[in-house]
Amino acid sequence: MSIANADDTSPTTMSDVSTVDKTSTSADRAQWVANPPEPPGICRELIQWLCDAMFPDPTKLFPLKNKTGTAVVGRLLKGVFPILCWGKSYNLGKFKNDILAGLTLASLCIPQSIGYANLAKLDPQYGLYTSIVPPLVYAILGSSREIAIGPVAIISMLLPTMIQKIQDPAADPFAYRNLVFTTTFFAGIFQAAFGLFRLGFLVDFLSQAAIVGFMGGAAIVIGLQQLKGLLGITHFTNKTDIISVMEAVFASFHHLNDQWNPLNFIIGTSFLSFILITKLLGKKYKKVFWLPAMAPLVSVILSTLLVFLTRADEHGVKIVKRVPPGLNPISTQNIQIHTPHISQILNAALIVAVVALTEAIAVGRSLASMKGYNIDGNKEMVALGFMNLAGSLTSCYTATGSLSRSAVNFSAGCETPVSNVVMAVTVMISLKMFTKLLYFTPNAILASIILSALPGLVDIHQAYNIWKIDKLDFLACLAAFFGVLFLSVEFGLLLSLVISFAKIIVISIKPGTEILGKIPGTDTFCDIHQYPMALNTPGVLIVRVKSGLLCFANANFVKDRILRFISSQEASGKGIAQFLVIDLSNLMNIDTSGIASLEELHNSLATSGIEMAVANPKWQVIHKLKVSNFVAKLKGRVFLSVGEAVDACLSAKMAAAI
Amino acid sequence: MSIANADDTSPTTMSDVSTVDKTSTSADRAQWVANPPEPPGICRELIQWLCDAMFPDPTKLFPLKNKTGTAVVGRLLKGVFPILCWGKSYNLGKFKNDILAGLTLASLCIPQSIGYANLAKLDPQYGLYTSIVPPLVYAILGSSREIAIGPVAIISMLLPTMIQKIQDPAADPFAYRNLVFTTTFFAGIFQAAFGLFRLGFLVDFLSQAAIVGFMGGAAIVIGLQQLKGLLGITHFTNKTDIISVMEAVFASFHHLNDQWNPLNFIIGTSFLSFILITKLLGKKYKKVFWLPAMAPLVSVILSTLLVFLTRADEHGVKIVKRVPPGLNPISTQNIQIHTPHISQILNAALIVAVVALTEAIAVGRSLASMKGYNIDGNKEMVALGFMNLAGSLTSCYTATGSLSRSAVNFSAGCETPVSNVVMAVTVMISLKMFTKLLYFTPNAILASIILSALPGLVDIHQAYNIWKIDKLDFLACLAAFFGVLFLSVEFGLLLSLVISFAKIIVISIKPGTEILGKIPGTDTFCDIHQYPMALNTPGVLIVRVKSGLLCFANANFVKDRILRFISSQEASGKGIAQFLVIDLSNLMNIDTSGIASLEELHNSLATSGIEMAVANPKWQVIHKLKVSNFVAKLKGRVFLSVGEAVDACLSAKMAAAI
Repeated sequence: MSIANADDTSPTTMSDVSTVDKTSTSADRAQWVANPPEPPGICRELIQWLCDAMFPDPTKLFPLKNKTGTAVVGRLLKGVFPILCWGKSYNLGKFKNDILAGLTLASLCIPQSIGYANLAKLDPQYGLYTSIVPPLVYAILGSSREIAIGPVAIISMLLPTMIQKIQDPAADPFAYRNLVFTTTFFAGIFQAAFGLFRLGFLVDFLSQAAIVGFMGGAAIVIGLQQLKGLLGITHFTNKTDIISVMEAVFASFHHLNDQWNPLNFIIGTSFLSFILITKLLGKKYKKVFWLPAMAPLVSVILSTLLVFLTRADEHGVKIVKRVPPGLNPISTQNIQIHTPHISQILNAALIVAVVALTEAIAVGRSLASMKGYNIDGNKEMVALGFMNLAGSLTSCYTATGSLSRSAVNFSAGCETPVSNVVMAVTVMISLKMFTKLLYFTPNAILASIILSALPGLVDIHQAYNIWKIDKLDFLACLAAFFGVLFLSVEFGLLLSLVISFAKIIVISIKPGTEILGKIPGTDTFCDIHQYPMALNTPGVLIVRVKSGLLCFANANFVKDRILRFISSQEASGKGIAQFLVIDLSNLMNIDTSGIASLEELHNSLATSGIEMAVANPKWQVIHKLKVSNFVAKLKGRVFLSVGEAVDACLSAKMAAAI
Repeated sequence: MSIANADDTSPTTMSDVSTVDKTSTSADRAQWVANPPEPPGICRELIQWLCDAMFPDPTKLFPLKNKTGTAVVGRLLKGVFPILCWGKSYNLGKFKNDILAGLTLASLCIPQSIGYANLAKLDPQYGLYTSIVPPLVYAILGSSREIAIGPVAIISMLLPTMIQKIQDPAADPFAYRNLVFTTTFFAGIFQAAFGLFRLGFLVDFLSQAAIVGFMGGAAIVIGLQQLKGLLGITHFTNKTDIISVMEAVFASFHHLNDQWNPLNFIIGTSFLSFILITKLLGKKYKKVFWLPAMAPLVSVILSTLLVFLTRADEHGVKIVKRVPPGLNPISTQNIQIHTPHISQILNAALIVAVVALTEAIAVGRSLASMKGYNIDGNKEMVALGFMNLAGSLTSCYTATGSLSRSAVNFSAGCETPVSNVVMAVTVMISLKMFTKLLYFTPNAILASIILSALPGLVDIHQAYNIWKIDKLDFLACLAAFFGVLFLSVEFGLLLSLVISFAKIIVISIKPGTEILGKIPGTDTFCDIHQYPMALNTPGVLIVRVKSGLLCFANANFVKDRILRFISSQEASGKGIAQFLVIDLSNLMNIDTSGIASLEELHNSLATSGIEMAVANPKWQVIHKLKVSNFVAKLKGRVFLSVGEAVDACLSAKMAAAI
């Protein structure tokens, strides 16, 4: 049996063995425990793991049944272009559903795109451009059927916070835009590279708790920034932390006359209430799901008409003004690879790439699992990466899968990525024909559209769930939340990453032991606190190490704890154990310090006349115990299970009594 | 049963239960698994853990039998002053052994102290002072019987490397000395505080591998620095890294005439060969253990005589010159708490304190386990801390337990810390009477004494052992070694610390699964690769998560791996599993991402018609699975053991077949 190929060995091969031997003596079994095959070395494990991570499932590419060349090429092509998979069975019924979903999507997407472009400190048309090329590219390469591609709030907020440190968008919008496209270009390269090198697992390093906290904090930061548009303030802070923003708001209140304009506020809040009410209705009555999806577009049309008819722009209402008509201009010359700020750009691109991937893959996965299919994270990354690469060359900023619009797409009954195509075409038509109509659109309405999308980012239910399940996870969540809110987006992400990994260390080395007892009616031994009905065996103390790793950081503690327990037993006159069985089944691994402390424990027990036995060591552990000669010191007291160890102890006791 | 008091619950209380119920049905057991008592919360666990760490074993202080006031006070006093424990049974026979060991120790200690003082860039008498007060204080407070207290090589090298950055010892020896005493003062405070707050476990964070690498690197660094004394070079580098030192040596070779003096080299190397030969003899013939112990003193006497008779100091041999007679002067006014460099001093003191504790406790523990008793790390730290505090006030620099001298003390047959007292008194007498005789002692002989002690620090055997047992541990060892050698002592320590903890993370989150099979003749299910004789159960796939933690960093990988394995099974036509049993016994903990991926796995399997069952979840895991409602989704398919899960699957299959 090949060991390198560890998990691909089928258990059915075992049935050959089963005919040979179905019984065994305890002596056989002790031999089996003490003499396992050589476990895979660290290099082999590393290679195996890299292979697993790097190469897609070979059985899917090269199934056993069909090995002709054309079939393999066909499968390869289908792997790269999922459109070939669903394209064959595409029909008019599906197309009808997709058109409906795509139009609903477009009606939500157009106002959101303009709003998000505003948030990203770009002109409105760039948001619309971003709703054209990326969705079209994704429709060909992407494997999720429900995801809606385009600009999203988080990315639109992240980009300026990082790029305006290099270039103030108000001072030189052209230079700023170049940097945005360059960042998008590199973000696309990072994403595609992650996918091609199958580093999809890196995205998992942002834990769910961190994402919930991050999204919540980002939503509040974005919301606060909308106060600028909602209040019609001209001078506002570029910082994102809550303290700077609140200071800027209060400063504008102090200069009420020259800064603040109540008309903006009235328009903004009244349409915000309208959108929020339609959202509530949509949530309550599933049949009118299109109502909240249409509300932003209706708001834009109504408010634009209002401003146009009343000429409110002459009374201080800030408006969008000219949006140049026409489709995405080519922007290859805007990509600046030789900028002196390349390291900052790369840093920003990495963060944007990771956050964009995290959102898209989280959305894609959760919708896919609802429909019962699976998404290959790595393939998805390649699709998102190429989509952003193409986008950066056609005047788009970073696009990804939108949480809110994907949900609308799903409810609208989309069948395939064609809904994204329909949406993109609709946006194209609008860009060609209706940009003039956007002239009088008030900025306040854009702010209220962004604000109305934010509640979806604050997932209080999930945060409560995390609190209920895992307090340390919740701490990581809070760290991300407050880090984003009070410090900066990058710092919040970093902090929650550090806490998440610190948590892994703490849990892994948390030293602990548990006393085991026999579950009545079975041969199973379990923690007496988890199973209060467990029975003890007189004279035999059974201890399990309560950690996956016995290493330098916890081995001494575990040893001391066992010795202390034995001495407290003796001191309290509760009878002296003659045998100590250590259940090693929890240990995935052990290091030299861990072995040394087991040896010290063995020596200490030997001087007190207590015999030590070891039960159920895992592969790596028994191997190391053998190599370090500890197994020899135990003189054969290594057993397959706690039950066998206890039986052996009891018969030794009987023999001694006779 | 109290849960907070987790491990102190005696299993003997369980015997009352055992009379009530000795059998159970599988339905009972499923209930037991699914409805465990509430596990201790994170706060409770933290408090429990802090109590364990902070307070000494209460049963030792307040045993149940004897609770009168005087007895408790007596025990408290004995706890603080171990001398009260062994003092009672002290007799003439033991005293004889201690005198012999103490005198042997003194003969080794006097030349080493002078050499180490030289290494620490202090005048020779400070080394001798350090061999008086600390051993006397330790004899009263310390609990190790074999440890030999005094200056050691590592600390003598560490102190100047860190302090000469603040103050050049050659420019102002007085100011430098003040800083050394201040560092010792704070190191003592740190050590005592570690012990009093029972933070002894922090010392464990320096893994054995890191210590081996660090010691090896430090030995080479110290050895290279001795080239100064051995070659009689006046101008030498203050840096410790190998490159700077080699540059300084080559520079001195280039100016042969004014720098290098061959006489020093001849004296040094000839006596070094003498000491090393006696060491080899001592190792070979255990009876002449005193020979290597006396050799340094004999070398000092012979070389001093030689220089005195030939007046070689007039021909370029560097000599010690005047050593002021008299005992330790009080140095309270030398402690500079209000220095502007206090943060650097505190940093140095912390490193010195930790390294000193690590060496002393490692030595103490290994010798104690040879004699079959146990050392309380925390108590030991208090003793070492107060000893250094007292030392810093009486012109001593940081002392600790010496590796080489403790071994000599042990071989010389010491019985109690009285051997340290005998040594201290001998050093006192020498300081009073014989300092004049040191005038002509050549510096080269001090270098050779230090050099002869270094091979004991390079533990190649242990390094090979680490390589054999754990390749990643060996990496930490190498990092410490090369870090110390090529960069700096602090950096080497830090690097190995980082690698050690990174290793914990990697091992803890390394995602993996193993297929289980039934061990013939038992109800135990084990990894089919560790036990190739394990038998499969047709139609039931049994998978165990091969990691102690199912968390954000590995949960998706584990899920994908299981799904991939199932689809590869199907693709290869090896029969489709109808049931998947996941053995969770390895999982100490799970987080929200882990639960989410179990749910996704459950959904994916449900669409393929595969039923999922869970076996043997640990306390925290089943609790979280319950809180998150996953147990409800499993519809009772949670079992105590893999065996019961498989039985349940098989009977479900039978029922379906009928």
